[in-house]
Amino acid sequence: MSELTRRGLMTAAATVAATSAMGPLFSAQPARAQAASAAGQQAAGWYRYKVGDIEVTAVTDGINRFKFPDTFVLNQNRDAVNKALEAAFMQKDMMEIPYTPIVVKNGGKITVIDTGTSEANFANSKGAAGQFTRNLAASGIDAKDVSTVIISHYHGDHINGLLKADNSLTYPNAEILVPAAEHKYFMDDAEMNKQSGDRMVGVFKNLRRVFGNAEVVKRVKTYDAGKEVVPGVNAVATYGHTPGHTSHVVSSGGKSVFVQADITNVPFLFTRNPGWHLMFDQIPDMAEATRRKTYDMLATDKVMLQGFHYPFPAVAYIEKTSSGYREVPVPWSPTI
Amino acid sequence: MSELTRRGLMTAAATVAATSAMGPLFSAQPARAQAASAAGQQAAGWYRYKVGDIEVTAVTDGINRFKFPDTFVLNQNRDAVNKALEAAFMQKDMMEIPYTPIVVKNGGKITVIDTGTSEANFANSKGAAGQFTRNLAASGIDAKDVSTVIISHYHGDHINGLLKADNSLTYPNAEILVPAAEHKYFMDDAEMNKQSGDRMVGVFKNLRRVFGNAEVVKRVKTYDAGKEVVPGVNAVATYGHTPGHTSHVVSSGGKSVFVQADITNVPFLFTRNPGWHLMFDQIPDMAEATRRKTYDMLATDKVMLQGFHYPFPAVAYIEKTSSGYREVPVPWSPTI
Repeated sequence: MSELTRRGLMTAAATVAATSAMGPLFSAQPARAQAASAAGQQAAGWYRYKVGDIEVTAVTDGINRFKFPDTFVLNQNRDAVNKALEAAFMQKDMMEIPYTPIVVKNGGKITVIDTGTSEANFANSKGAAGQFTRNLAASGIDAKDVSTVIISHYHGDHINGLLKADNSLTYPNAEILVPAAEHKYFMDDAEMNKQSGDRMVGVFKNLRRVFGNAEVVKRVKTYDAGKEVVPGVNAVATYGHTPGHTSHVVSSGGKSVFVQADITNVPFLFTRNPGWHLMFDQIPDMAEATRRKTYDMLATDKVMLQGFHYPFPAVAYIEKTSSGYREVPVPWSPTI
Repeated sequence: MSELTRRGLMTAAATVAATSAMGPLFSAQPARAQAASAAGQQAAGWYRYKVGDIEVTAVTDGINRFKFPDTFVLNQNRDAVNKALEAAFMQKDMMEIPYTPIVVKNGGKITVIDTGTSEANFANSKGAAGQFTRNLAASGIDAKDVSTVIISHYHGDHINGLLKADNSLTYPNAEILVPAAEHKYFMDDAEMNKQSGDRMVGVFKNLRRVFGNAEVVKRVKTYDAGKEVVPGVNAVATYGHTPGHTSHVVSSGGKSVFVQADITNVPFLFTRNPGWHLMFDQIPDMAEATRRKTYDMLATDKVMLQGFHYPFPAVAYIEKTSSGYREVPVPWSPTI
């Protein structure tokens, strides 16, 4: 009856004389005030949703795609990682880590939470990353109108976007709010001088570059975990990934979303396997304890999660599984 | 050590004096040739990826959101459906059915597969659906440049977009290719006259309106399952949802994507539970057999799926579970 067969399904149109050369297409018809000249391009990566009266815009900075080292997961070997990638229909031996900062608009006040890898990285990565400010502009938000930048922790993919390639400020009119515990730890020369490994030396060197910038210094203020950082955004201490790693809860009108920063890296490895230790987790046991505690809450209370290293738009719920957790992406809504 | 507590996480900023009034924001900075004036709006819903040399653009027509009747799943009661919705973190008693037609560009030839609910439905639905042509334009594709429209089956959300509100052609320069088996069945007056139920009478009435349109009649040609429809697109008979329901395989350079049309409706119900019979499945047992056979293949051969009623961008892999299957959304790529 049905003519469906595996051979039929798999038969490629081998005779297709496809050429990649296609003339540019320009549409005369605007779509909801967005000019149409995107032929051959990807859609601008931004996605908007409401949390009560607050408008959240998830904005991708792009993806870092690389061959991962044997030590990518400290307590698992390459075979175990590849097996998890295969289960997620991902390519073996390759890691794809997305970056998704967000923007919170509350009563006209615009706050960016984490900044991505910086505009300079757009050219460096051949457009694969460093997209944040481009996508931000596409979403209708001018960097000059950002009044606050909140930083979760001091890794480069979260702080480098504070500065443009010429070391001027990406958000010239914004105060820069940083976790007090993170700032205290990383600005302590004694802690810096303890480091010997290349990676941690590099982490300190990079953050000292950013937080040594005179314009940044003028605008930095610390905030405490457990307190409201800006109206509608509360800080939650989620230490472990770094000593002062801090997450945020955006709340309005009885609704909330948990903005996790790096409690997990990519969900297809670390949400599924909360006991796996990422090579970038500075205090792995503490990071794991924080991860399990947070994800137990998210699953039990059905709290919506915004995950910096989740695939764009990086909004998901968390369910418990026999071996850990699993992300359930929130369906894309074509309207706000 | 960590200050994370459930109370802390759940504490809403009750004092937030949020107002929804926000001045319009316009950015002077274009993002990859896309003008930025999208403040307060959702991103245009289109997503582009390559299958070998072919470029596929998934374009959302929007979502139909409604209180579902007790008979929505013919062989399950409301409690079972609500339990599945709850497991998917969806709202009880509400159904949200997305529509995602696609566009296939191969060597400059542009083919639309299925057409959405029509531009007229944009106003009717208050913008919730009928978005296809708007999002198509935003993606840089002019409806006038579409040379072929392929139809999978004769339900309104797949064929109504052939016509504009004034009954003129949405794609004035396109041939309209329809499944021979579907056309034969639905254009048979004897079959029409057998119907008594309101829904099936309505289905016939609607498709006779569309395929009775003089301009449509001029452009309709039938295609056979098991054959190439246009270069790179092969038809696969997947009968059951309707008597001539047909799916498509887009293939190039050894890569392929299976474009399923309505082998399942929303994945959180029918992919998870392939034995559930949707009220719109005309021949439920045949639809179930097709569903199981197709999904066994997709899971076993790890074939990428494009699902008309999957959440945008509606691209997923299929894994087997103890009770059926589960969709694994393909991570959004911020570049093509």
